[in-house]
Amino acid sequence: MILDPSTRAEVLVEALPYVRRFAGRVVVVKYGGNALAGAAGEGREDAVLVRFAEDVVLMRSVGMLPVVVHGGGPQIGALMGRLGKTPEFHDGLRVTDAETLDIARMVLVGKVNREIVGAINLHGPVAVGCSGEDAGFITAAERDPALGYVGDVASVDPALLRHLLREGLVPVVATIGTDASGQAYNINADTVAGAVAVALGAEKLVFLTDVAGVCSDREDPATVMRRVGAGALEELVASGAVGGGMVPKALACMHAVRSGVAAAHVLDGRVSHVLLLELLTDEGIGTMVVAP
Amino acid sequence: MILDPSTRAEVLVEALPYVRRFAGRVVVVKYGGNALAGAAGEGREDAVLVRFAEDVVLMRSVGMLPVVVHGGGPQIGALMGRLGKTPEFHDGLRVTDAETLDIARMVLVGKVNREIVGAINLHGPVAVGCSGEDAGFITAAERDPALGYVGDVASVDPALLRHLLREGLVPVVATIGTDASGQAYNINADTVAGAVAVALGAEKLVFLTDVAGVCSDREDPATVMRRVGAGALEELVASGAVGGGMVPKALACMHAVRSGVAAAHVLDGRVSHVLLLELLTDEGIGTMVVAP
Amino acid sequence: MILDPSTRAEVLVEALPYVRRFAGRVVVVKYGGNALAGAAGEGREDAVLVRFAEDVVLMRSVGMLPVVVHGGGPQIGALMGRLGKTPEFHDGLRVTDAETLDIARMVLVGKVNREIVGAINLHGPVAVGCSGEDAGFITAAERDPALGYVGDVASVDPALLRHLLREGLVPVVATIGTDASGQAYNINADTVAGAVAVALGAEKLVFLTDVAGVCSDREDPATVMRRVGAGALEELVASGAVGGGMVPKALACMHAVRSGVAAAHVLDGRVSHVLLLELLTDEGIGTMVVAP
Amino acid sequence: MILDPSTRAEVLVEALPYVRRFAGRVVVVKYGGNALAGAAGEGREDAVLVRFAEDVVLMRSVGMLPVVVHGGGPQIGALMGRLGKTPEFHDGLRVTDAETLDIARMVLVGKVNREIVGAINLHGPVAVGCSGEDAGFITAAERDPALGYVGDVASVDPALLRHLLREGLVPVVATIGTDASGQAYNINADTVAGAVAVALGAEKLVFLTDVAGVCSDREDPATVMRRVGAGALEELVASGAVGGGMVPKALACMHAVRSGVAAAHVLDGRVSHVLLLELLTDEGIGTMVVAP
Amino acid sequence: MILDPSTRAEVLVEALPYVRRFAGRVVVVKYGGNALAGAAGEGREDAVLVRFAEDVVLMRSVGMLPVVVHGGGPQIGALMGRLGKTPEFHDGLRVTDAETLDIARMVLVGKVNREIVGAINLHGPVAVGCSGEDAGFITAAERDPALGYVGDVASVDPALLRHLLREGLVPVVATIGTDASGQAYNINADTVAGAVAVALGAEKLVFLTDVAGVCSDREDPATVMRRVGAGALEELVASGAVGGGMVPKALACMHAVRSGVAAAHVLDGRVSHVLLLELLTDEGIGTMVVAP
Amino acid sequence: MILDPSTRAEVLVEALPYVRRFAGRVVVVKYGGNALAGAAGEGREDAVLVRFAEDVVLMRSVGMLPVVVHGGGPQIGALMGRLGKTPEFHDGLRVTDAETLDIARMVLVGKVNREIVGAINLHGPVAVGCSGEDAGFITAAERDPALGYVGDVASVDPALLRHLLREGLVPVVATIGTDASGQAYNINADTVAGAVAVALGAEKLVFLTDVAGVCSDREDPATVMRRVGAGALEELVASGAVGGGMVPKALACMHAVRSGVAAAHVLDGRVSHVLLLELLTDEGIGTMVVAP
Repeated sequence: MILDPSTRAEVLVEALPYVRRFAGRVVVVKYGGNALAGAAGEGREDAVLVRFAEDVVLMRSVGMLPVVVHGGGPQIGALMGRLGKTPEFHDGLRVTDAETLDIARMVLVGKVNREIVGAINLHGPVAVGCSGEDAGFITAAERDPALGYVGDVASVDPALLRHLLREGLVPVVATIGTDASGQAYNINADTVAGAVAVALGAEKLVFLTDVAGVCSDREDPATVMRRVGAGALEELVASGAVGGGMVPKALACMHAVRSGVAAAHVLDGRVSHVLLLELLTDEGIGTMVVAP
Repeated sequence: MILDPSTRAEVLVEALPYVRRFAGRVVVVKYGGNALAGAAGEGREDAVLVRFAEDVVLMRSVGMLPVVVHGGGPQIGALMGRLGKTPEFHDGLRVTDAETLDIARMVLVGKVNREIVGAINLHGPVAVGCSGEDAGFITAAERDPALGYVGDVASVDPALLRHLLREGLVPVVATIGTDASGQAYNINADTVAGAVAVALGAEKLVFLTDVAGVCSDREDPATVMRRVGAGALEELVASGAVGGGMVPKALACMHAVRSGVAAAHVLDGRVSHVLLLELLTDEGIGTMVVAP
Repeated sequence: MILDPSTRAEVLVEALPYVRRFAGRVVVVKYGGNALAGAAGEGREDAVLVRFAEDVVLMRSVGMLPVVVHGGGPQIGALMGRLGKTPEFHDGLRVTDAETLDIARMVLVGKVNREIVGAINLHGPVAVGCSGEDAGFITAAERDPALGYVGDVASVDPALLRHLLREGLVPVVATIGTDASGQAYNINADTVAGAVAVALGAEKLVFLTDVAGVCSDREDPATVMRRVGAGALEELVASGAVGGGMVPKALACMHAVRSGVAAAHVLDGRVSHVLLLELLTDEGIGTMVVAP
Repeated sequence: MILDPSTRAEVLVEALPYVRRFAGRVVVVKYGGNALAGAAGEGREDAVLVRFAEDVVLMRSVGMLPVVVHGGGPQIGALMGRLGKTPEFHDGLRVTDAETLDIARMVLVGKVNREIVGAINLHGPVAVGCSGEDAGFITAAERDPALGYVGDVASVDPALLRHLLREGLVPVVATIGTDASGQAYNINADTVAGAVAVALGAEKLVFLTDVAGVCSDREDPATVMRRVGAGALEELVASGAVGGGMVPKALACMHAVRSGVAAAHVLDGRVSHVLLLELLTDEGIGTMVVAP
Repeated sequence: MILDPSTRAEVLVEALPYVRRFAGRVVVVKYGGNALAGAAGEGREDAVLVRFAEDVVLMRSVGMLPVVVHGGGPQIGALMGRLGKTPEFHDGLRVTDAETLDIARMVLVGKVNREIVGAINLHGPVAVGCSGEDAGFITAAERDPALGYVGDVASVDPALLRHLLREGLVPVVATIGTDASGQAYNINADTVAGAVAVALGAEKLVFLTDVAGVCSDREDPATVMRRVGAGALEELVASGAVGGGMVPKALACMHAVRSGVAAAHVLDGRVSHVLLLELLTDEGIGTMVVAP
Repeated sequence: MILDPSTRAEVLVEALPYVRRFAGRVVVVKYGGNALAGAAGEGREDAVLVRFAEDVVLMRSVGMLPVVVHGGGPQIGALMGRLGKTPEFHDGLRVTDAETLDIARMVLVGKVNREIVGAINLHGPVAVGCSGEDAGFITAAERDPALGYVGDVASVDPALLRHLLREGLVPVVATIGTDASGQAYNINADTVAGAVAVALGAEKLVFLTDVAGVCSDREDPATVMRRVGAGALEELVASGAVGGGMVPKALACMHAVRSGVAAAHVLDGRVSHVLLLELLTDEGIGTMVVAP
């Protein structure tokens, strides 16, 4: 496409103040496991990962400090299936016994994390994979004995991530934590993303999803909210208007903006370069959650 | 104008690598006195200065280190006129006696310099006016006894400008230099811009003019060159194809690129945000001079 | 003159503890425009400037941090006269319209400032001229609408001056300030000197004048005071015993010593090396103002 | 056991100079996958890992900079078996297709690495797992197209490991590398340990094995050599006297000591605290390889 | 003696955590003059000094910061005797006139201090002798006019000792102090050791004596206490159960542990390497005094 | 004495450039033992020491880095006499057996050094006594077996003195050195002063003596030289025109200026404040030795 100079100038004049504002600021991006789980051969998922990696590299190149947090539910399920392991559920949540934890850890740390690191590093050796076990930076707490090794975040020590950021590196975080006895736990990635954003004093927390944003009525995609306060969001969750997989994201957004993160966003990761558009243009994309 | 997201994304993806590449790099911009000399009331010149100041501030905001060098010929002539001083010429160049030098210095340092500093500082207190006399940073040499106090650049000590740049400030340079005896001289601003770019190891030297670029035939505006080597440009000057006021600019460009400045540009300062367009887009604007 | 060694030793033993005490301390010196305004050909004024510059350089050479603030009333009047501009007065103060401000700025920044910078730099490239507009370091407030662009000091940001001092440079300050809208104002140099001394946490504020000091009876030169408290001085100003051009100096001295400057001095700038004598000998020169 | 004071003193007087000598020095320890692969329930392997972790923590506590490199062959084989994947061999080496690489990476990065990190972190949060893919620190080269994704070390960039060491952390390295196209390869852990030791300018390279050292006659355990030069070792490898799994260790030792590592050691990891004994006592343990 | 590896490992595993714990911590050691005063030819004292120096060097080599404080009573007495000076006593304490002070200072600073410095420096140039007069670091106060120049510690300025420690040097302190008028005093070395330990925020204060420790009954060597609180020790001193030369040591220990020193020790300097044994083994040696 | 202001100004204008020039430069001053050895009661010597200390403190206060080196021959002789020790000579030089060395060390380190430290510290706690044994900073070599423990300077390690100077302290050096075996030697103080000046890259080396300077004819005080080259001085020594106690001073001066010290001086220490006069006035005092 050919753009006339004044259009280009307009975009640049709009974007540069944001570049300045976000320079040196941490942006935590939760990248969902779904995006990586597509069937081989289709390639759409690969394209999403490729563009995501490009955005991360561009963010870093202009001085932002991106941190990637990822999940990997579909991929865990796939390996369990291949190993003939039948999932068990308790109140709708997967029970994680020692073997399941072992599988989850292999998949998250040894497979999904590696693929994201690899996609970013195609642009230059800047991504470093890590797990909450490394330097014990995520301390976990058992959520419910009936669920086994499913954990909550007890605390995040930001020192390791800060070391990596200071060296110009991009941490890619797999969401395994450990308790004081050294026992590992699998933790919800949305929750970890929020806790990491708070621990790092991030400027923004961004969830890349496969929906257009948070709807005030989960049944009606036309009700995507452009901007919502943490209080109003809390009520929507309480009333059930916001539900399902959006709940942990909504809770993490609320926790983050109430703990000093300037804004949290739920974006549609399928939109090309949605990260850059959100960060560097005046126009709102997806849903922005702000305090109070 | 409403831009679709993918167009915006395209501009940003193109621009950000340049932002990164030029971060921490010095860009010397020669801003011509003509732009400031228009008749009161018209306002076009003001608009040019306003947009120029905006570009300088945006450049700095994303980490570039702009240095502004300016002339002021028309304004000097105007004050001489008001003081009843008749210009004298020698070989077509103005003879500068002690009184003329005094007038030139008052106008350059005390008027033009102030206006540029003021326009930039409307966006924040970052511009600092200085003259080559300050900390003796421009050493001048007499060009020709018959011309009086018209000087050439003998040397530039970049220390003062570096101090200012290191503090995040934008130096705005009036082109008065002094010789070893303390005598002041008025020096051609194009020449000073080139010498300052070399002394600072600048990434770019940019001349903002009121033409579209350097023409291979000065009589024919359609012959604007997009890119020209220093050697070819030298021949065009030697043959007279490039002449008039373009000669000192051409010489300064040639000197700069042969002394380590990556590229020199002659741009049309009347194009809105031409500095940003040149720096942050793939497409060429005006004329780029490169080594060899 | 031939001095015997023991006399020399006596002077040195007296001076060195002062050298130590003032090392690294800021001394703000107000240098009056009168000293530079003498008729051409006489040369006495030149001699004063030459010795003043020598003292400033010697002060700096032993580790003090001199800052020069200057006025230029007579020189502004002279250029106004040449341009056929008739001064207008309001309550005895000169009305400053836009054209007068333009002239004042050209003279202060582009002429007087340059001459002082030049005289100091004959000893080495250490003086840097600046105006309160640079990096917006003097914020001005309109004094009285009827006076036009005559300003008061609203605030002084010492950062730029500190940068220059840290680099071993000697700032020479022209007293133009700007308000939030970018409008420039001419400000009384005595007032600026006091405000700069306070903002820099100066050790001393020194006014070089053409009188022997502050007299307790303005009609009687024999009443020069060696030392006076700020409170006593305030009463003398209130009673009119101290009046005329001494009033802004007296006010600046009082403000300075009440705001942490250790001492303020009114000295006779015609005494050879009066700055060194005041700083480095036990014996008092001129008038010293101290808190309270 | 009760030790008399003079015995204790003797051990301490002998050890402290080594503590001093190795303070701030890098010691690369290759920890074999065999040690972790034992049958569940036996517990001997666990005990070995526990004591190994304790030694690593003690080394670090007195200022040494341990780096752990590990393999995981038996564990990879086990998961392949469970997934019904039949190993294929070429010239006695396992062919590694894309799926095998995926499995190897999951096991090495997501399982074995985690177990070592976890064992060390029981003593405090100091171990950080990483793979050669992180910050692209191991560049791999394909060894033989017939073997698939089996790589050699093309180069090691020590920057990431140095960052971690500088922060007081203990890197635990899984031996996956990538080539310029981003393709991952599985690399022999002995080879990686040697290359990492050279890249870090390590003081020592230590292989923890399940034999007493390098035998000059592989058939006769009584021929363990206490000390051998790289040249003599090369001849033993060439003659076949040293063979089997000892070959990559021998080659890595030779490469390391010829590239500036002071000494390389092959120790029996089953001896309790063998690392401390080797590092802090005069008496030799296992086999020491030295230049030339 | 031949030690089996597991015994060595046991000692090391026990010692290394102490090495870590005491790294960077100050240990003040009072070395008594008695140890140096033996008859020539016997050599036992020499052996004690040699082993003491070795311990000091080993402590420093593993990162501890030893400071030695010494007395020299017997040596002072010997020189007085040779100079035909008869000691005078007042309430059992030696009266120190100007000549006696001169002799004491020559012996302490010019003889005993030199011998300790020399013994340590045989291992490397790390010991630096100093007296409380140097940089005026010990301010003394007259104890009792009847005693002449016998002083108490009024204050200790730790700056000089800290400079030396920061450079990796071992200060060896002779216990002469000065008052504000510059008058020197001889001060009890036990008292100085305690004051220096407090001023430096030492981890430990150690008295090397020729007894096994502090006895709860001074008449019965079998009553050596392994550990005693400062309060209990105070009572023992008050009751006279602890008396004689042990009193100043006991007082210094009490003062030190009540002022932040973690522990004070009275050890038998005749036990080989008693310093290392105390610092690096679990088992207690001599008497440890702790707060409260 | 009452000085008129212009005389004072003249001295200051002359002195301040020297203050600047010597700021941060090392000046090594050899202070002779004779000055301290006068008969009790006279007091002239005390006055010399008092003024010397004042000069040293003033030098330091304006940023110079004085280092004092002292001897103590008369004082050593006095104590030997009191101890009934008969001096023995070999070729006119005193034989130094172990006991004599012991006495010399006590006197130099424990008495003379202390008196100089004390005199300086009356002005503030800045002087630190040290001996060449401290941190082994003077390595000595035996001069002649027949002379016993009389040493030459083998090397000077300037690290300890630099540490002290960096902390703003004034080292006062007693001239005992040690050889590799730890054996101490007494070394000529003139020689040490020269070697210390060279090792520190001093600006000046100054000998304070009791004569007016170096005479070209030792028999005729009227032949004092104001300035002499090292070559010419060498010839005067060779010819015997310069002889006696001036020889080691002359050799030290020659060695110093040939090794980078800018100038060496032999001054009359009895002249009040002779150090300040030499350093801070244009007029020459005593004899200046320069290269070549």
